[in-house]
Amino acid sequence: MNVEFINPFLSSMLNVMSTMAQMELTPEKPRLKKNEVAMGDVSGLIGMVSKQAKGSLSITFEASLALATMKNMVGEAPDEVNEEITDLIGEITNMVTGGAKRLLSEKGIEFDMATPIVVSGPNHTIHHKAKGPVIIIPLKSDVGRAYIEFSFDE
Amino acid sequence: MNVEFINPFLSSMLNVMSTMAQMELTPEKPRLKKNEVAMGDVSGLIGMVSKQAKGSLSITFEASLALATMKNMVGEAPDEVNEEITDLIGEITNMVTGGAKRLLSEKGIEFDMATPIVVSGPNHTIHHKAKGPVIIIPLKSDVGRAYIEFSFDE
Repeated sequence: MNVEFINPFLSSMLNVMSTMAQMELTPEKPRLKKNEVAMGDVSGLIGMVSKQAKGSLSITFEASLALATMKNMVGEAPDEVNEEITDLIGEITNMVTGGAKRLLSEKGIEFDMATPIVVSGPNHTIHHKAKGPVIIIPLKSDVGRAYIEFSFDE
Repeated sequence: MNVEFINPFLSSMLNVMSTMAQMELTPEKPRLKKNEVAMGDVSGLIGMVSKQAKGSLSITFEASLALATMKNMVGEAPDEVNEEITDLIGEITNMVTGGAKRLLSEKGIEFDMATPIVVSGPNHTIHHKAKGPVIIIPLKSDVGRAYIEFSFDE
């Protein structure tokens, strides 16, 4: 089931970053996360629950990209990850997941979203513990990288 | 609604750590997390969804406590946080939330759990972005600290 989720989450992420922050991200090929370690400085996480499946999504940002996103949106940004930034990343995570939820609903896949949690700390890594494989989509920009990851119980 | 959740989550955590790992933790008084920053090295996070509310839970461990928990359970532990440890912390998070879910169900509060996510990285912090207040329960032991945090949309 995970593969059907790739395009909805990816297109929702590109759309949110482009419309909210005029930030054009270039996705790399989605792939299964196996031994790969994707490190970042601020991550938004959200749980998803449906009758068909349960799962989790994360969007991990390098600090430079998170700060540049804030600057593009409101004209200024703090020098480092603070509560304004974690609020922004929580909001982006909510919007990306909400957008994907609408796209998946059109395919007959419905789920409820929990509330977002944001983790901050230099070079942390995320480990999804659903039973299914973890899909990772790296995204590049001039000012840093982001990673969408998700996994569902099969 | 958050206050009713304190005892179920706390007693479930004490019970899981005691029965799985013979680890006796001493809770401090639960309180609202305001300007407090609780840092840890490995955290289990889980989303919760019900008709009444949505929310998120985290259990943040200092590495020393996570490693000692593994050692108590299986007789040996790695020197640092690795995938065995993140698996264990994901499992503990699942069991604590599952235990609290049963206790809350007896009070007529039902929710579904998403799948756990584990974050690793020295000194990271967790920011719950539900609309309600964040409750934090610090727990002490001889080998390090843990923090249960949760928040629900009101």
